[in-house]
Amino acid sequence: MEKIIIDTGDSLSGIVVGGRWQAVVKMLPESGVVIITDDNVYDKYGIDFPAFPVIKIRPGEGSKTLSTVGRIIDELLKIGADRSCFILGIGGGVVCDLAGFVASIYLRGVRFGFVSTSLLSQVDASVGGKNGVDAGLYKNVIGTFRQPEFVICDTTMLSTLPANEYLSGLAEMLKIALIGDAALVEIAEKNYGAIMERDRHLMMDTVARTIKYKASVVAEDERESGARRVLNFGHTYGHPIEMVNQFQHGFAVAAGMELAIHLSFEKGLLDNNNKRRALKLLDQYGVVPDYEISGKKMEELISRDKKRSGNSVHFVLIRDIGEPIIEKISIDELVGFYSTFQKNRKT
Amino acid sequence: MEKIIIDTGDSLSGIVVGGRWQAVVKMLPESGVVIITDDNVYDKYGIDFPAFPVIKIRPGEGSKTLSTVGRIIDELLKIGADRSCFILGIGGGVVCDLAGFVASIYLRGVRFGFVSTSLLSQVDASVGGKNGVDAGLYKNVIGTFRQPEFVICDTTMLSTLPANEYLSGLAEMLKIALIGDAALVEIAEKNYGAIMERDRHLMMDTVARTIKYKASVVAEDERESGARRVLNFGHTYGHPIEMVNQFQHGFAVAAGMELAIHLSFEKGLLDNNNKRRALKLLDQYGVVPDYEISGKKMEELISRDKKRSGNSVHFVLIRDIGEPIIEKISIDELVGFYSTFQKNRKT
Repeated sequence: MEKIIIDTGDSLSGIVVGGRWQAVVKMLPESGVVIITDDNVYDKYGIDFPAFPVIKIRPGEGSKTLSTVGRIIDELLKIGADRSCFILGIGGGVVCDLAGFVASIYLRGVRFGFVSTSLLSQVDASVGGKNGVDAGLYKNVIGTFRQPEFVICDTTMLSTLPANEYLSGLAEMLKIALIGDAALVEIAEKNYGAIMERDRHLMMDTVARTIKYKASVVAEDERESGARRVLNFGHTYGHPIEMVNQFQHGFAVAAGMELAIHLSFEKGLLDNNNKRRALKLLDQYGVVPDYEISGKKMEELISRDKKRSGNSVHFVLIRDIGEPIIEKISIDELVGFYSTFQKNRKT
Repeated sequence: MEKIIIDTGDSLSGIVVGGRWQAVVKMLPESGVVIITDDNVYDKYGIDFPAFPVIKIRPGEGSKTLSTVGRIIDELLKIGADRSCFILGIGGGVVCDLAGFVASIYLRGVRFGFVSTSLLSQVDASVGGKNGVDAGLYKNVIGTFRQPEFVICDTTMLSTLPANEYLSGLAEMLKIALIGDAALVEIAEKNYGAIMERDRHLMMDTVARTIKYKASVVAEDERESGARRVLNFGHTYGHPIEMVNQFQHGFAVAAGMELAIHLSFEKGLLDNNNKRRALKLLDQYGVVPDYEISGKKMEELISRDKKRSGNSVHFVLIRDIGEPIIEKISIDELVGFYSTFQKNRKT
């Protein structure tokens, strides 16, 4: 078991990797806890939940709306949760995003923590204090930055994930490896079998490495004004691909990484060997999906990117395995590159 | 013109009292501003708004819902507002509460400032960084703490307020006087005529005094864990009265203050002279409305008070004009006192 502390100056957040999730009771107050989870997680693990009121949501991205937020708040009011309450999210990214957002606006903010059940939420959603919901097609445009008091990442829980969800989480892990941890790239290259078998101990190691890198970046830059931007690797192209194709998040990011790797090479930042190595890794794990999105749609959606500033985007490239570099690139150039890339691919 | 700076450690917020609101353009970025206002304010002042996109809401407390928040966010997305945008709320408490809340969750937080058009929002809603919306009958249970960059309080704007709204604001001003500014109590006692005529210069003085007191309390305690609780004078009883009777906020608080003054006397904290002086002030301005609410309903609604902790409430009493004192009082005692008070009043 490993405990990683995230210190953003304002707040401390502890991420526990590898312990059994049932130990969460030790981190909770004796009373006033309310659990937020989804139907799937409840079916699998509800029997072991500590004895507190449970608010259930429907599984899936479709629940990430203001109207679900309103419903959860109505239930909290019905339960009589006051300012001293503690919201415990038990679930994947959607549950944690909702629980974290609700906790940051209910009664102007109450305490909260997570048991992260999916790989994606263990390595991504639970670290960094971002939460939020979607507005129509626009993902995560409503939310706050607020650190949970703790996140418990029990890698035994990964065994019950649907294959797709597991793979989507792996894609995010590969993202972190490619931008920040060359040793993790090597581990991933050499341990394909054990990783795909969801070996609990190996995953404890890889999850902890991933979180540590992300934590180091977040601690430096909680509000995403600078250094943290590297975490958006694969996201500029990935978000539009996700919106149009309705993939799970990690796959869309993988498609976006593939494009970013090619663009890094195109711009003379990444040499041919490293380009091939990076692409091979994505290929080995089979995380890049087939997708369709026209240049025009790509342009429209990149223009709506939260990270857009004026007509440019802070785009994340890599100049080596584990070495990101951020460049302000015009939307025109990004769309042009995308269209050419798609044309070449088809011919 | 007077500028009051609120420094909470985390953020600086400047409140400008007495200048002309049109000068707001000097405080705005050159581009990316979006104005949020209501139909009434737009009808009166829209012609002088700076040339930026305007999002209008329906006037009144009924607009303080998550669904209005969703609609405003949809419009921001349509306008293409990015992270560098600036939200300018021009209006009373409802507009400022909504604009502040939207600004704190849109794209996980963007810049914002207010032109406060109502007396209530000048002396109350705009200072302190609280924002929020209601959930059904529960007021302000959804929101955040975040300071606007500036609040402009132009007392000439008070001349266009409906009488009721002006009086509701006066009630909040009297609240501040009673808990924190004995000199303001004297000013209010001696200048009834000028205050009711909304004399611009006198109101500059009284508004600035009120804000200064509130600012000093907020600066000490941005997140309402201690000292700031004094601002809840009149609110414990006032909120239930407001919910059931649908009064404007200030009147409900005045009814709550009346009860709190009597309770302060009952508990031997306030002497008879000061009790009579405090009650006379409320009477002079005619701010305490007729209201109906059963002891049972009062109990139910106090039990839902955001500030409840367990079976008690941190209740604000006064022991002298301008001297608040906070006591943890059980809900049972509060309901008992209320019921006896109502019985005595009727006989």
